[in-house]
Amino acid sequence: MTSPITVPVVLGERSYEISIGPGLLAEAGTRIAALAPQARLAIVTDTNVAGLHLATLAESLDRAGLAHQTVTVEPGEASKSFTTFARVCEDLIATRVERGDLVVAFGGGVIGDLAGFAAAVIRRGMRFVQIPTSLLAQVDSSVGGKTGINSRHGKNLVGAFHQPSLVLADTSVLDTLSKREFRAGYAEVAKYGLINDAAFFGWLERRWRDVMAGGAAREEAIAISCRSKAGIVARDETETGERALLNLGHTFGHALEAVTGYDSRRLVHGEGVAIGMVLAHEFSARLGLCSQETPSRVAAHLAEVGLPTRIGQIPGGAGSADALMTAITQDKKVKRGRLTFILTRGIGESFIADDVDPAAVRHFLAEKLADGPDAAAPVTGP
Amino acid sequence: MTSPITVPVVLGERSYEISIGPGLLAEAGTRIAALAPQARLAIVTDTNVAGLHLATLAESLDRAGLAHQTVTVEPGEASKSFTTFARVCEDLIATRVERGDLVVAFGGGVIGDLAGFAAAVIRRGMRFVQIPTSLLAQVDSSVGGKTGINSRHGKNLVGAFHQPSLVLADTSVLDTLSKREFRAGYAEVAKYGLINDAAFFGWLERRWRDVMAGGAAREEAIAISCRSKAGIVARDETETGERALLNLGHTFGHALEAVTGYDSRRLVHGEGVAIGMVLAHEFSARLGLCSQETPSRVAAHLAEVGLPTRIGQIPGGAGSADALMTAITQDKKVKRGRLTFILTRGIGESFIADDVDPAAVRHFLAEKLADGPDAAAPVTGP
Ligand SMILES: NC(=O)c1ccc[n+]([C@@H]2O[C@H](COP(=O)([O-])OP(=O)(O)OC[C@H]3O[C@@H](n4cnc5c(N)ncnc54)[C@H](O)[C@@H]3O)[C@@H](O)[C@H]2O)c1
Ligand SMILES: NC(=O)c1ccc[n+]([C@@H]2O[C@H](COP(=O)([O-])OP(=O)(O)OC[C@H]3O[C@@H](n4cnc5c(N)ncnc54)[C@H](O)[C@@H]3O)[C@@H](O)[C@H]2O)c1
Repeated sequence: MTSPITVPVVLGERSYEISIGPGLLAEAGTRIAALAPQARLAIVTDTNVAGLHLATLAESLDRAGLAHQTVTVEPGEASKSFTTFARVCEDLIATRVERGDLVVAFGGGVIGDLAGFAAAVIRRGMRFVQIPTSLLAQVDSSVGGKTGINSRHGKNLVGAFHQPSLVLADTSVLDTLSKREFRAGYAEVAKYGLINDAAFFGWLERRWRDVMAGGAAREEAIAISCRSKAGIVARDETETGERALLNLGHTFGHALEAVTGYDSRRLVHGEGVAIGMVLAHEFSARLGLCSQETPSRVAAHLAEVGLPTRIGQIPGGAGSADALMTAITQDKKVKRGRLTFILTRGIGESFIADDVDPAAVRHFLAEKLADGPDAAAPVTGP
Repeated sequence: MTSPITVPVVLGERSYEISIGPGLLAEAGTRIAALAPQARLAIVTDTNVAGLHLATLAESLDRAGLAHQTVTVEPGEASKSFTTFARVCEDLIATRVERGDLVVAFGGGVIGDLAGFAAAVIRRGMRFVQIPTSLLAQVDSSVGGKTGINSRHGKNLVGAFHQPSLVLADTSVLDTLSKREFRAGYAEVAKYGLINDAAFFGWLERRWRDVMAGGAAREEAIAISCRSKAGIVARDETETGERALLNLGHTFGHALEAVTGYDSRRLVHGEGVAIGMVLAHEFSARLGLCSQETPSRVAAHLAEVGLPTRIGQIPGGAGSADALMTAITQDKKVKRGRLTFILTRGIGESFIADDVDPAAVRHFLAEKLADGPDAAAPVTGP
């Protein structure tokens, strides 16, 4: 067996481990059998991931003598719907997995959220394993137990906290990820620097090319991200406080995803987060919380990596300030009409502001929209 | 305010109270405001209950200054579907209730299970209040936090444990319940005697007419039932052991509901439970666990009350032993191919048997089915 990096997620009897390293997929059988020798497995995946990596996983499970069946969905955010959720639940139940068996979420964040939510509610809770295959899923969505689907009123409005029993992050499966999706996941990596780790952000500014290239720097970036998230989740599992910091850039980002109809040709989640993080830093500067240089430095790094950083870069635009505000106020982070935003006092100095004036946000967004569509080519290449 | 009977459900920080008594609906506003003075309420109910009792509830909430909106579904088990669940979630989110607000489940067990599950997953968990309006809901489904919907493979296969913040059981709303639905709820009342309280079963044999008639005996029966359930739930919230006793009669009952297509014209839940409890006692006698007199005494009491006690009484029959076995093995209570049943050594002496031979059950059911349709008129009157 390989010697992966191991990151513990410490949550009492719900504790588990994240293993990070190349070649883990081929060891999935042994590692899952160590956890649940008799379990039958129901794998949930999307057609992209199935086409590229299911054979490796299946062989590994076969070698370990673990019975498995697969439920496949279409790739993309649209699968986080009530309709697909119902179909996945029915199909999982039809595989006749029982309460001690395992659901395996094998794919990006969409699969993790969807399959994790199904595992949370089938028979009122089944165990599950996350095998994240996108960078975004490896550094963020597979860790911490948030699962869910989208409402037509907003993202992730329906779901459950349900911790996995194990996370296997095979860094070599990322080699088949498109550059665009890799960059989208990179936005969440950069987020950990921006939340509370200025040194990590500085490291990323110097080493991002190595992270993209693969090898030790990539593994290190993923491990640092997972450790950061695991720490926050261990201190605040159900987001009564600190965990909200993980939403840095996400209130704006989710609104952008909503107004672009979750159309991945126009915007994927990580791109929304990239633009959203720049907006959160710009808005903080506008409120006098941090210097003007802070948003410029954030935008410069994300742009260098190849991520969009301005609303104007979204093909087809992002609607009106009204549409964005409707999406924002329907997002989870609202309390008695005041908005909760993650704002910042500088790189790595984010904080929760739970009394943000909606009028100020609207004004800020209207200005950003007035900048108009970007002259530069939209960043939606391969 | 009236002085209702109060039954505490002791579950640490998830503890709550059940209040039982006539006229509580008119006090719902004051009682909910005491719990959550600023909350906005989203009521989920069915058209039957809305037509009969929503005005009383709404007036009470208005007097207490609580804002409220209502989401209405069709009455009947068919509403515990993925489709209705999705619609109710979307409608609840559209009322813009926020995380500190309250979902109110106002109806029978169908509404409690459906609205409770929606409350469990909207924004990953909202507070909710149960105002049960059927006898079954007052003595059983509103207590203990099991919520959920049905899969096409079986009942309650998708759901969550989510405790209410308050249960208000207004015993006078039961006056509008049909005799048939009242009797169906009575099956669950009798269940508490059969599980572990022979004295209560004896009391019911003597006093069932008073329970039906209303007044003090009815309230007492409801309070005893709630206390019994609250005790079991407090000792085993998530059904790792003892709580399974509450499924007495339910494995057979759920299978009968499944093969009759959840068609309430043929069989309602409590009727399935009544027949199921008789079958569980007969099967226990067959295995030599209890005397032949035990099932006879159970059947005699339930029949006297007007409940069906034999498969043959179900209009249209109950399919084949194969169909019933498929439904039974798809029910939750299966482990590695052996069946978990609640069996008994006598009245009030039930226990969990987790190694029941499917072949013995099939043989027993085939025999019961061979008895053929009943000559007596089916018990489906008003
Ligand atoms: N639960 C959480 O805590 C959390 C945190 C962050 C994001 N999310 C959610 O995650 C989702 C976004 O995740 P995502 O970006 O992974 O999206 P995704 O699952 O849609 O994956 C992106 C694309 O990459 C493909 N893909 C995945 N792995 C691949 C591989 N190894 N090779 C080739 N193609 C591959 C997928 O098929 C898909 O087309 C959003 O729905 C977001 O809300 C959840
Ligand atoms: N969650 C649990 O622990 C639990 C326990 C037992 C049963 N259940 C579930 O409960 C459901 C059965 O509950 P139910 O029997 O209350 O069914 P129900 O909710 O369908 O109610 C039965 C009928 O009575 C009507 N009704 C309700 N209150 C009325 C009133 N006051 N006056 C006139 N009509 C009224 C309803 O409209 C419906 O037509 C099943 O789905 C079962 O699985 C859940």
